Amino acid sequence: MQEIKKYVEENKQRFLDELFELLRFPSVSADPKYKTDVFKAADFVAEKLKEAGADQVEVCQTAGYPIVYGEKIIDASLPTILVYGHYDVQPADPLELWHTPPFEPTIREGKIYARGSADDKGQFYMHVKAFELMVKTNTLACNVKFMIEGEEEVGSANLSTFVNVNAERLTADVVLISDTSMISMEDPSIETGLRGLSYLEVEVTGPNRDLHSGIYGGAVANPITVLCQMIASLHDGNNHITIPEFYSKVAELTEEEKTALNSAPFDLEEYKADLDIAEEWGEKGYSTLERTGTRPTLEVNGIWGGYIGEGAKTVLPSKANAKISLRLVPNQSSAEIAEIFQKHMESIAPASVKVKVINHHGGEPVVTPTDSVAYRAAEKAIEESFGKKPIPTRGGGSIPIVALFEDVLGIKSVLMGFGLDSDALHSPNEKYDIFNYYKGIETLPLFHKYFAELSK
Amino acid sequence: MQEIKKYVEENKQRFLDELFELLRFPSVSADPKYKTDVFKAADFVAEKLKEAGADQVEVCQTAGYPIVYGEKIIDASLPTILVYGHYDVQPADPLELWHTPPFEPTIREGKIYARGSADDKGQFYMHVKAFELMVKTNTLACNVKFMIEGEEEVGSANLSTFVNVNAERLTADVVLISDTSMISMEDPSIETGLRGLSYLEVEVTGPNRDLHSGIYGGAVANPITVLCQMIASLHDGNNHITIPEFYSKVAELTEEEKTALNSAPFDLEEYKADLDIAEEWGEKGYSTLERTGTRPTLEVNGIWGGYIGEGAKTVLPSKANAKISLRLVPNQSSAEIAEIFQKHMESIAPASVKVKVINHHGGEPVVTPTDSVAYRAAEKAIEESFGKKPIPTRGGGSIPIVALFEDVLGIKSVLMGFGLDSDALHSPNEKYDIFNYYKGIETLPLFHKYFAELSK
Repeated sequence: MQEIKKYVEENKQRFLDELFELLRFPSVSADPKYKTDVFKAADFVAEKLKEAGADQVEVCQTAGYPIVYGEKIIDASLPTILVYGHYDVQPADPLELWHTPPFEPTIREGKIYARGSADDKGQFYMHVKAFELMVKTNTLACNVKFMIEGEEEVGSANLSTFVNVNAERLTADVVLISDTSMISMEDPSIETGLRGLSYLEVEVTGPNRDLHSGIYGGAVANPITVLCQMIASLHDGNNHITIPEFYSKVAELTEEEKTALNSAPFDLEEYKADLDIAEEWGEKGYSTLERTGTRPTLEVNGIWGGYIGEGAKTVLPSKANAKISLRLVPNQSSAEIAEIFQKHMESIAPASVKVKVINHHGGEPVVTPTDSVAYRAAEKAIEESFGKKPIPTRGGGSIPIVALFEDVLGIKSVLMGFGLDSDALHSPNEKYDIFNYYKGIETLPLFHKYFAELSK
Repeated sequence: MQEIKKYVEENKQRFLDELFELLRFPSVSADPKYKTDVFKAADFVAEKLKEAGADQVEVCQTAGYPIVYGEKIIDASLPTILVYGHYDVQPADPLELWHTPPFEPTIREGKIYARGSADDKGQFYMHVKAFELMVKTNTLACNVKFMIEGEEEVGSANLSTFVNVNAERLTADVVLISDTSMISMEDPSIETGLRGLSYLEVEVTGPNRDLHSGIYGGAVANPITVLCQMIASLHDGNNHITIPEFYSKVAELTEEEKTALNSAPFDLEEYKADLDIAEEWGEKGYSTLERTGTRPTLEVNGIWGGYIGEGAKTVLPSKANAKISLRLVPNQSSAEIAEIFQKHMESIAPASVKVKVINHHGGEPVVTPTDSVAYRAAEKAIEESFGKKPIPTRGGGSIPIVALFEDVLGIKSVLMGFGLDSDALHSPNEKYDIFNYYKGIETLPLFHKYFAELSK
């Protein structure tokens, strides 16, 4: 531990400068206009992996954005850790809400403000630096493989092909991922579950052209009104989702799981104050931690239709659209849910409009074991580094790769995230604490160490 | 009539060229970026009024866009006609749906395609040319006053001040307006009623920042979902508006009025085919003509919230907005309806969000008499020009000036519109038939003639 702290101390500034370089690439995978920046970010990651001491470094082209691979095989008899992360980021808009430019990392009160600082550049780069540390101090305890992709924020469309084709090359004993958060630095935690995702888009078409709302209003179905009625009907009075069969496969928690989950420190008043809301919301009969961690949800991520410019326009529009995503829990299937959602929306649309539902992408829900060698290694590493045993939690986010790895390679994942829920992921002013960044770099080598020991 | 036809024939091309010049000004009053173009349009109108022979021509400045005034007093003992129109136009977006540029008038199949071609540049300019015709052929039968404003599409905010201050100067026996439509050239009609308007904007705020829909989804109220639920609740299963007191002052039609209204030629199948809709929509118990002409309505003119860009963003947004307008009928009051709408929206908002309602602008509903000298003059003029007696109809649109004139000056209006409902007002590819343009120029002098005769 002393040797680790010493190396980090000596390289503190450089570790930060390199991360800033990485954060300056506007590698937004959702928006075609950033295409070249996404590719540049991939090359940067490859270069840094080489410098850190990785072999076989390759920027693997795919049908979309490249996957950066690198490895260090020190001894075939030692266990192998496959590190997964992503160098692409969410769109930065609404830009006007950022206090400093999203792609010009800025430090305020010990926090790095930049799109991707926590999700996931700041977190996967900890692994690159921890790897450098182990190589330079000659303390590598396991073989290491890196797979850093560029399409996580748009559904990892080309990852499964890559994993299937490279199954051999990707052989490992565990997948190590830092793309989640902890309760706090005082209450370290490890996420043991992730929700799946079905992301769809709904288009409602009324008349074949925009109409004058005075001449036609009241006699022709308004697609915005109809879309609102359809969306409103998707939750009942208890905020229970009304889509038939939606809950049919949902795995309910055991009493033990419920108790464990709700024993995690959580202050509802603080939570509401942080978001400036007078009242929380959600499915009746479940706590906030259960709602976000263990229950499927339906969220409208975007809606638009008609005149949205300055001032007033009295138009009865031809179309209205919404982007809707469903978070899934074990044992729901993304494809199946997308299909029943599609069927349902078509079935509730009145004859006065036409409805089109597009399936953007999806990911499967997962629960990771808490009794595995890998989990125990993570537990020991965090306990030594934080001086406190981590609490197992259930995260609401989705990392499709976790399920993909289990299916294709039969490898379980460990989610050693060092972020915080307050990091404003996907929001303006995303941040990552410098403290957490260094803490992660210090903690990860301990995981390698204990994973090797406990694997014996 | 022969003399009229002769003059129009001789000046056909110039009449069209001048209108095209006027249509080339992107005088969009709703969008500040067209400010100078709106002012230029006003100057152009003033110049053309002078050329046509008007005296006292003045571009009257207001707190907003100017009102162009001009007059020709030939004999104080003759009746005076006050012509009203507006040189401002609706925004042209969505631009991508226009087949030819909105501000580059283009003729296709005898129709002039351009924003403002029918609403209202093409229509008020008929009066300028009919006036020129009467002056040049020395056939003026009445005194004429022109008042052409530049803020009709944004609620005529500064008109009432102007009218109050200039009551003296605006004295007249009738207000003549061409800003409405006919059933068809085969079935000429005169609108005898206009709906009022209350235009509002609703903003729903949930959390104080955009959130990650995975981490917070299911536990925090989504402002889009809430706004949709609020909008959905505004109509019941019979498409009746649910706002308390909304219908309390609505004047129901007499059986005679109903019969007269529904006797107007109307083909529902044609109507549906033209709009490409499988089914009409509306308040149960009323015909399409009653719904648009005589019933109050509530339309969502625009909605936006969350991520509306390319691809997917899993965000739970902080805000959602909607522009909503209500069309009013006698004896509803715009201010009163705006207030009960505001109160209602605030009352149905759940505690998990904050709601703000802004009142953009409004106008009062009116019904014009069908037994007045002015109406009979219009009836005779159209009968002579079209060879068919016009049918009285109720229009769904709103022209606040009509009510304003009655209140402030005690003058009734006559709505001699020459447009068609299919002119795509407020929509992409707005058009005005060249035939209607010339027909209007030929018919208006006849109104002057008969108004003078019947006033004796």
